[in-house]
Amino acid sequence: MRIARISTPTGPQHAVDRAGTWAHIVDPFEEPLCYTGGSTPHGDAELLPPVAPAVVLGIGHNLTLNEHPLPLQAWHKSAHTVAAPGEEIVAARNRGTVNAEGELAVVIGKTAAGLTAENALEHVLGYTCVNDVTNVDQGAVDERNFQGKSGVNYTPLGPWIETSLPDPEQAGIEVRVNGVARAQSGTFNLPSTVVDCLVYVTSWLTLEPGDVVMTGAPGTAVPVAPGDRVDIVVEGIGTLSSTVS
Amino acid sequence: MRIARISTPTGPQHAVDRAGTWAHIVDPFEEPLCYTGGSTPHGDAELLPPVAPAVVLGIGHNLTLNEHPLPLQAWHKSAHTVAAPGEEIVAARNRGTVNAEGELAVVIGKTAAGLTAENALEHVLGYTCVNDVTNVDQGAVDERNFQGKSGVNYTPLGPWIETSLPDPEQAGIEVRVNGVARAQSGTFNLPSTVVDCLVYVTSWLTLEPGDVVMTGAPGTAVPVAPGDRVDIVVEGIGTLSSTVS
Repeated sequence: MRIARISTPTGPQHAVDRAGTWAHIVDPFEEPLCYTGGSTPHGDAELLPPVAPAVVLGIGHNLTLNEHPLPLQAWHKSAHTVAAPGEEIVAARNRGTVNAEGELAVVIGKTAAGLTAENALEHVLGYTCVNDVTNVDQGAVDERNFQGKSGVNYTPLGPWIETSLPDPEQAGIEVRVNGVARAQSGTFNLPSTVVDCLVYVTSWLTLEPGDVVMTGAPGTAVPVAPGDRVDIVVEGIGTLSSTVS
Repeated sequence: MRIARISTPTGPQHAVDRAGTWAHIVDPFEEPLCYTGGSTPHGDAELLPPVAPAVVLGIGHNLTLNEHPLPLQAWHKSAHTVAAPGEEIVAARNRGTVNAEGELAVVIGKTAAGLTAENALEHVLGYTCVNDVTNVDQGAVDERNFQGKSGVNYTPLGPWIETSLPDPEQAGIEVRVNGVARAQSGTFNLPSTVVDCLVYVTSWLTLEPGDVVMTGAPGTAVPVAPGDRVDIVVEGIGTLSSTVS
């Protein structure tokens, strides 16, 4: 099932993709879902980020498959950087290379503390695509991931939440720049699994519904420049497109 | 002027300390303030954190006065950790020493990007006390300040916002444990000034009204243990008290 968040004259509205339209729902986190009866045709829907997270976490040291990864290490990204599908990434100028980083994002569905490998996925509402845009050269002087991660619209998120991804550990990820595939990988190339990330994070911080965990870029970091169009394609979810200005 | 946020049967309510009572206001960020006509007597007011920030930033490398400080380095703390005056800090167990860290917190009043030394303070609504509770031993394996900063109620904030602090660069800070002063210092001992912090942060990240910048602990980190009562006293603002469980 796909859950989107769309712009309406009365404010943001969550909705489910049903019978060729976005069927409005009251609250994506309640079970069972309650439909309002309203709907928006696909062609008329302006997609917003599918959630408005209070907490956005990145996972450090989860980049490319290797036998001896460093211990997992989470970090916070500003919720102000979350951007809608189609929004312009404003590349910070004169601050080194700007990377697009294609990742699988986990959207938390239920309050989650001290998760185990057995119950972690039960606390997930679903999955979406994220572009963890980064001024990568700042890393040398920015051990806490603030300077390189704080630009305007540096966290495109969407286009929607897929609640029934067959296997989050086996999701292909492709990064396209101006229509050309520049990176092809998937969560199967992450040294720590998606479940590992959730167990680690919730061993320290209680997550709440709507929080987002970006699970790491398995060789999916690609330099971009103003004028580029960048697509993050996650298998089983869809395509998150942005332009760079 | 003091601005608090208090609990009422209809939800959180901002209010101004006026004529011995908390006079309710519509929005602490608008000018001039609009009074609703309602009020709550001091004795009946349950204080909440004075804002509900989307972004809470700490400032690394701003600890004790020295001539050659490392460059400023900000980091995000989870908004979920923000706690009200009087709430219990839940000390994470078996994870090393828990420090209380008494700091001056800046509450942003207007959207702030690329601030200068000249205009930085014009974007500030006011100041409050913050306790940046930390599992300090995690620092050795937690370069991004996630593990040591994520416990339940690890960011007591309050008791209210003081909008007219005479000089934020000269505010005394005292940390008391069980009524005994354990650290006495002030923002005058920070190697980088409060204004420096705002200029640095907004050179990278656009801040929004209600965001909070914790300006650093100038020798005001004190170990605490379950059962302790800890007070953060900032001169010109007031006392932020918490218990440790």
